[in-house]
Amino acid sequence: MSTSPKPLHLNAFLMSTGHHEASWRLPESDPYSTTSIAHYAKLAQTAERGRLDSIFFADSPSLWGTIGRRPSGSLEPTVVLAAIAALTTRIGLIATASTTYNEPYNLARRFASIDHISGGRVGWNIVTTATLDAARNFNRDELPSHAARYARAEEFLQVAKKLWDSWDDKAVLADKEAGLWGDDRLLYPAAHAGEHFQVAGALNVPRTPQGHPLLVQAGSSEDGRAFAANHAEAIFTAWQTIEEAQAFYADVKRRAKDAGRDPDGVLVLPGIVPVLGSTEAEARLLEEELDRLIVPEYALGNLAKQLKLDPSELDLDKELPAVLPTEDEIEGAKSRFTLIVDLARRERLTVRQLIGRLGGGRGHRTFTGTPEQVADAILDWADNGAADGFNIMPAVLPSGLEAFVDQVVPILQAKGRFRTEYEATTLRGHYGLARPENPRRAEAVASAVKGVLAHSR
Amino acid sequence: MSTSPKPLHLNAFLMSTGHHEASWRLPESDPYSTTSIAHYAKLAQTAERGRLDSIFFADSPSLWGTIGRRPSGSLEPTVVLAAIAALTTRIGLIATASTTYNEPYNLARRFASIDHISGGRVGWNIVTTATLDAARNFNRDELPSHAARYARAEEFLQVAKKLWDSWDDKAVLADKEAGLWGDDRLLYPAAHAGEHFQVAGALNVPRTPQGHPLLVQAGSSEDGRAFAANHAEAIFTAWQTIEEAQAFYADVKRRAKDAGRDPDGVLVLPGIVPVLGSTEAEARLLEEELDRLIVPEYALGNLAKQLKLDPSELDLDKELPAVLPTEDEIEGAKSRFTLIVDLARRERLTVRQLIGRLGGGRGHRTFTGTPEQVADAILDWADNGAADGFNIMPAVLPSGLEAFVDQVVPILQAKGRFRTEYEATTLRGHYGLARPENPRRAEAVASAVKGVLAHSR
Repeated sequence: MSTSPKPLHLNAFLMSTGHHEASWRLPESDPYSTTSIAHYAKLAQTAERGRLDSIFFADSPSLWGTIGRRPSGSLEPTVVLAAIAALTTRIGLIATASTTYNEPYNLARRFASIDHISGGRVGWNIVTTATLDAARNFNRDELPSHAARYARAEEFLQVAKKLWDSWDDKAVLADKEAGLWGDDRLLYPAAHAGEHFQVAGALNVPRTPQGHPLLVQAGSSEDGRAFAANHAEAIFTAWQTIEEAQAFYADVKRRAKDAGRDPDGVLVLPGIVPVLGSTEAEARLLEEELDRLIVPEYALGNLAKQLKLDPSELDLDKELPAVLPTEDEIEGAKSRFTLIVDLARRERLTVRQLIGRLGGGRGHRTFTGTPEQVADAILDWADNGAADGFNIMPAVLPSGLEAFVDQVVPILQAKGRFRTEYEATTLRGHYGLARPENPRRAEAVASAVKGVLAHSR
Repeated sequence: MSTSPKPLHLNAFLMSTGHHEASWRLPESDPYSTTSIAHYAKLAQTAERGRLDSIFFADSPSLWGTIGRRPSGSLEPTVVLAAIAALTTRIGLIATASTTYNEPYNLARRFASIDHISGGRVGWNIVTTATLDAARNFNRDELPSHAARYARAEEFLQVAKKLWDSWDDKAVLADKEAGLWGDDRLLYPAAHAGEHFQVAGALNVPRTPQGHPLLVQAGSSEDGRAFAANHAEAIFTAWQTIEEAQAFYADVKRRAKDAGRDPDGVLVLPGIVPVLGSTEAEARLLEEELDRLIVPEYALGNLAKQLKLDPSELDLDKELPAVLPTEDEIEGAKSRFTLIVDLARRERLTVRQLIGRLGGGRGHRTFTGTPEQVADAILDWADNGAADGFNIMPAVLPSGLEAFVDQVVPILQAKGRFRTEYEATTLRGHYGLARPENPRRAEAVASAVKGVLAHSR
């Protein structure tokens, strides 16, 4: 189907002891890894050894559910990635942060700072935060509506871009002799006054190695896709079948084109959960061991929450109730809701079976098998219009990432489909994306020319 | 005057090329150091080599003044310190952050995260941010009043403490066999509903190595002193004379005692600018060279801003105008205003002379001389009730910090007045402060006991 195949992009999605909710119970796992920077640094170094494009942390500013059944809580990703930046040299560093519960000046500045600290390796996974628990930590009684969150996100990003572009690339003169450190005419204050934000000044951080962070997005709802088409440079997404992934891929590329963007500048990275064994049987054994360790009553509570049901409405040994809320009624993670319901209906899963499927990757596709089988599945999706690369979500960490890097990556490299050495120093470079020009400079030049012309009349 | 002298505490206040505003113009200085993590990491490692208690970054979420005359802008301190945490093992890490322009959940979480990352080495310099420029970056047209900022700070800190104490030290069970990761009964949600903040949940970060960050404060106004007496564990302050420093020291210790606290648990650290030479004449030469490099017209603009005057009201070769605003009229940094005016009046300085004095350390006391003279001055203040230690503000960086560590610290060590090795692993440990107990646990136990008693009746 494809002509000369495009290079693959691989991101490692990191999460304490792994993406399977029972992974912490394995003998090999460190149940205290949620707060261990040594654990995360080791994972980042493993990903860098595999020449992956980036690592990534999900995030929400709230404690999700209870702490009873699985490692809960997580260090704040921007400070974790700043620490990891100091301990790595090439791997890209993508942090999730919420537009609903941050102020643009603070967040734009933190990302700009990490871009300087890391020499141009930071990315921002932009989320609007779909939980009531988070809202209640930020002075609210209710979750703001999906539409309201996306409207704020849109303006938030406008402001952030103005701030990242508020210093010209040539603003710092560093002329010791003349005593001139910078050129004030090459500062472009945000001067933003909108519906949600009023931000007057320039950022207090010079323009960064990447110009601005790689912008990543992960919502697949209608609002999410529109936002992604306008802004995202990489998209994390979750699909169970290649057909669904192909449809999403085509839709996003079309939307990006309609928005006047180069579709190749919007990379689509479905999440996959590799469960590896040296034989297929060995891989299946690991998967069964993990599913056996799930505590079903706890998982049932989480499932009920995602479906906006009371736990008493679910029976472990029956299918989902015939009548469920519609996506329109979900103010949280709309696309995740639909994915779960579609999966259960399509395969006629009992609640217990559904929990097993979701426990591994929370709705992401699991590929269980040998390294060759997983590499083949990856290339099947990549070569058939379903993916530009993948968001790798190991079921168990660190072992699952080590297995992927040591066993799957070499196969992709041998086939000439993945880099054997980094060719770039920045995250944008790894993803084949250019450093954005500063649009404010062009505006400033135009306005200065206009001033001169007016003056000379 | 003192019986057996208490150990000194030393903090290194870091700032691009140094605290003298013309330091960037020296041949040795890197004018791009504002965005260089290598520069800051090297400074931190130098401070650690000298066994200093901590390093510290000031901060404001705005670009201060113009970029024309001195390095402007600064990386966001929490991410800088997270990176430095990864490159050091013992030095304490104090970041400034504003209670006026942050949300407690986000900030409490970031500090808790860095405390985990650093193994218990983080401190928070609590500021209310006294500039209109910052207000205008956060949806406001006016600087909130001094009183309003402190009222918010008070509640902010209450919420932050509730969040830091929202996990019992024993909340994580990590019982793989039983499948029990944590004990939900040992979570104490903030459940805060106050005038400024409504925060329902527990933090999503377990209780940290230090329990909570070392709390630092730097305002010396009436509101600032009251806040410090109630909350601060270390105070950064600026005095020109030992008499003023003694009066402040006695006042703060008395206020802490009146607030029911142990006065020894509130450490007072005046800022000093050491300008070192192998002879006194050599030190004076460096000082003169730096003062000669100040651009007076630029400094005059900054001075006018701090005094709430128009620059045209100041004449470089005359004293300050006879009529000035009073401290009550200043909504910004009140104590800094008074310090400047007192200094100018007391020594009958012209504006040009005043600028020279302020250019070195922005109102902090400069000690110019040999290592022996600087060490003597330090011990004079420490032994006569003016200081528990010092906030060291080298005029030039990195050379000024290296000179202090290599030449002044050994003198203090030889006199038995400063540690030769770290005896603790945490910042609280360096400052001789205990890890705070979790008050929520006592409340929870009391409430549980009450429940059992009620039940058994």
